Amino acid sequence: MPVEIISVGSEYIVQRYQNNSVAVIANRLLKTGVEVDYVSSVVGREAQLEEVLRQAIERSSLIFVVGGVSSGDYDVTKKLLTRVLKKRLVLNYRILDNIQAQYTSQGEKMPRHAEKRALVPTDAEILTNEIGTIPGFLFTQADAHVVLLPGNAHELDVMLKQHILPRLDSRTFRVGSIGACVLKTCGMAIEHIKDALRTLERAYRHYKIDYISDCEETSIIVTVRGDGSSFVDSKLDAVESKIRQKLGNHVYGTGGQTLEEVVGDLLQERKQTVALAESCTGGMIASKLTNIPGCSAYFERGVVSYSNAAKISLLDVSPNIIEKHGAVSAETAVAMAEGVRWIAQTTYGLSVTGIAGPDGGTPEKPVGLVYLALASEQGKTQWHRYQFDGDRWMVRTRAAQTALNLLRQHIEKLPKNAEPASHDAISAT
Amino acid sequence: MPVEIISVGSEYIVQRYQNNSVAVIANRLLKTGVEVDYVSSVVGREAQLEEVLRQAIERSSLIFVVGGVSSGDYDVTKKLLTRVLKKRLVLNYRILDNIQAQYTSQGEKMPRHAEKRALVPTDAEILTNEIGTIPGFLFTQADAHVVLLPGNAHELDVMLKQHILPRLDSRTFRVGSIGACVLKTCGMAIEHIKDALRTLERAYRHYKIDYISDCEETSIIVTVRGDGSSFVDSKLDAVESKIRQKLGNHVYGTGGQTLEEVVGDLLQERKQTVALAESCTGGMIASKLTNIPGCSAYFERGVVSYSNAAKISLLDVSPNIIEKHGAVSAETAVAMAEGVRWIAQTTYGLSVTGIAGPDGGTPEKPVGLVYLALASEQGKTQWHRYQFDGDRWMVRTRAAQTALNLLRQHIEKLPKNAEPASHDAISAT
Repeated sequence: MPVEIISVGSEYIVQRYQNNSVAVIANRLLKTGVEVDYVSSVVGREAQLEEVLRQAIERSSLIFVVGGVSSGDYDVTKKLLTRVLKKRLVLNYRILDNIQAQYTSQGEKMPRHAEKRALVPTDAEILTNEIGTIPGFLFTQADAHVVLLPGNAHELDVMLKQHILPRLDSRTFRVGSIGACVLKTCGMAIEHIKDALRTLERAYRHYKIDYISDCEETSIIVTVRGDGSSFVDSKLDAVESKIRQKLGNHVYGTGGQTLEEVVGDLLQERKQTVALAESCTGGMIASKLTNIPGCSAYFERGVVSYSNAAKISLLDVSPNIIEKHGAVSAETAVAMAEGVRWIAQTTYGLSVTGIAGPDGGTPEKPVGLVYLALASEQGKTQWHRYQFDGDRWMVRTRAAQTALNLLRQHIEKLPKNAEPASHDAISAT
Repeated sequence: MPVEIISVGSEYIVQRYQNNSVAVIANRLLKTGVEVDYVSSVVGREAQLEEVLRQAIERSSLIFVVGGVSSGDYDVTKKLLTRVLKKRLVLNYRILDNIQAQYTSQGEKMPRHAEKRALVPTDAEILTNEIGTIPGFLFTQADAHVVLLPGNAHELDVMLKQHILPRLDSRTFRVGSIGACVLKTCGMAIEHIKDALRTLERAYRHYKIDYISDCEETSIIVTVRGDGSSFVDSKLDAVESKIRQKLGNHVYGTGGQTLEEVVGDLLQERKQTVALAESCTGGMIASKLTNIPGCSAYFERGVVSYSNAAKISLLDVSPNIIEKHGAVSAETAVAMAEGVRWIAQTTYGLSVTGIAGPDGGTPEKPVGLVYLALASEQGKTQWHRYQFDGDRWMVRTRAAQTALNLLRQHIEKLPKNAEPASHDAISAT
């Protein structure tokens, strides 16, 4: 029976990273083994929204509807959904008190229009919201379950985990046995991944292998169907290990893991530290690493050395090197990595210098040319030269991701026991 | 007649910023005055995709279909769309040559499966792709126009501008007169914006005012319908100026402008420069500013001073200040801003220090507490204290955006003529 997500509001026209409630729901469901069949976004025009809601209830057995609270889309959706399901709205005084209390705590008077938020559909289960004031609702009809949630990605995620996912596990919604896993890869083009897994796809015809690729990485989604969850789980394990075998250390993680989380975990486990010297990535790597809670244990500093003066004064790069080889060169990259590591006294120094474009390229040094260097206590500083495709943002993103991947692969290659000792040696320097 | 966008593939489950082809199309259409009625994402299962395509052709007059090329979704979509529209696919040798040439230039042999990409539907107009190898197609049926585009946001944007938007202007697709504008605001909660514009909404009932809000900013979308484009344009101007009057300098730009672009333009116009000292934002501000081409004209350096040692050595912050007031304090923020400005010899020094969470908060200094400081040549260094809501990512994002907004509002308040002179004075120091 189909599963459907409907997002109400104009969010889809904003090109932004966060607040993507649809992605949060789809990911959580996928991890529980439930695939989504339809996803729609509807602007807040009532006639079209009602049409989409009616269609969903007709064709799907599990429907998630999300709408922004502050934009008013949530209230409109609640009203229409209640009408489509032939229920009524009644005022809930407990919720009204909560809303009132929130306004009072901010020293404001509750406006009249905020009262709408305390309206609750009859015959719907209230899904409490532990980190916000607006609850969600679960409607159960003969053939369909409709979950209405406020469109804040973070609140919605907490509510899903608390109220919905435990029931999905008990197969209230789930039909048949299905399992899925996501493998995340970096540093290998999607075409090469597909080539490498072509025989696998043939051998496991009854399994589905999907690919999602952006300019940073490729995710491989494996879905298995079968009789009984133990069958599904063992098949899933088998496919996963075959994929890992074929792709080697290009696989960096599973599920919702990000490359920066994996790098952070590796550094923390080994009690190692890193300092960054970024030129064309301009703080992107630092920004990724510092989004992980607790990163201060391994992230010492980052320098965005956009000007040559900054490279010389903050990273101790010799002006001669820049003059002789240019700011975008292997020599400068190496000097930046070694400089930042020496000054910050960290286990690793990681540097990026390149031409992000659209201007500034020459025949010898075209747009997209990027040098990465990694300085460490183990042997010589390594450097790599890349020629990345795409616009400014893509070149920068690819350079940042490739730099983190370089650090990951370097750490993973080291014997696990050797590090704490050598790190102590560095700290004592 | 309805307008619809269908995106084919699993992209919607990836929570990422870029490559959002749906947003690119919707934004371009909106700027041309065409509103989107339905947006759907379909996973690559053929039966459901065919169903969604059939429904779209039945209900909409202008349909955009996008699918990823490397994932294979584009080929599947092309095949199904051709079938639904009762056309056939034929091999186009010119496109085949292009694809072959691309493989050859990378020193690879073209795999057999890549041939599919050169299949072209009969009776469809080929939309050439200037920056890629895979073309799009325009199908014209009795009542519907279907535009099929490869799902790379950048290529697709260029193709839209070249092939589709000029025809939309000539009203092939457009019905009646409609105009829209987007105003971008920062630093004012959406509820307060709505309160401020409430009388406006009442006065202009026949205009639609929509709001899109995320944790960084709120966009206000005004849509006007009427007879004739001169009527629509003048009404739109009137509403826009009323909104600007009500919201004052909280409006920072229009359309697709970003806050960092506006700040960059302001600095460039005035030939001023900035250096950053970021603690909890960890490079986010630097990363935003350096995504703008030509930013090296005004962005001198950024320091991500995560450790106290980095604050002391890179920013010249006195250890006494950190010891006495703590790393998260107004005094440290001021010392960071003044330190980075002094060392980098820039017009402005902008600093952020705060507690992003989830750990590290205390009753006196809770999670979400952020200090910003702005040092400049004009008078005393200003500092501000904020208490931001939300998780780690949201606190950091809000802090970064608020810091940029602080700089924008400061520059906009200055008289325009005074700056070049004072900047020369600084350069000469």
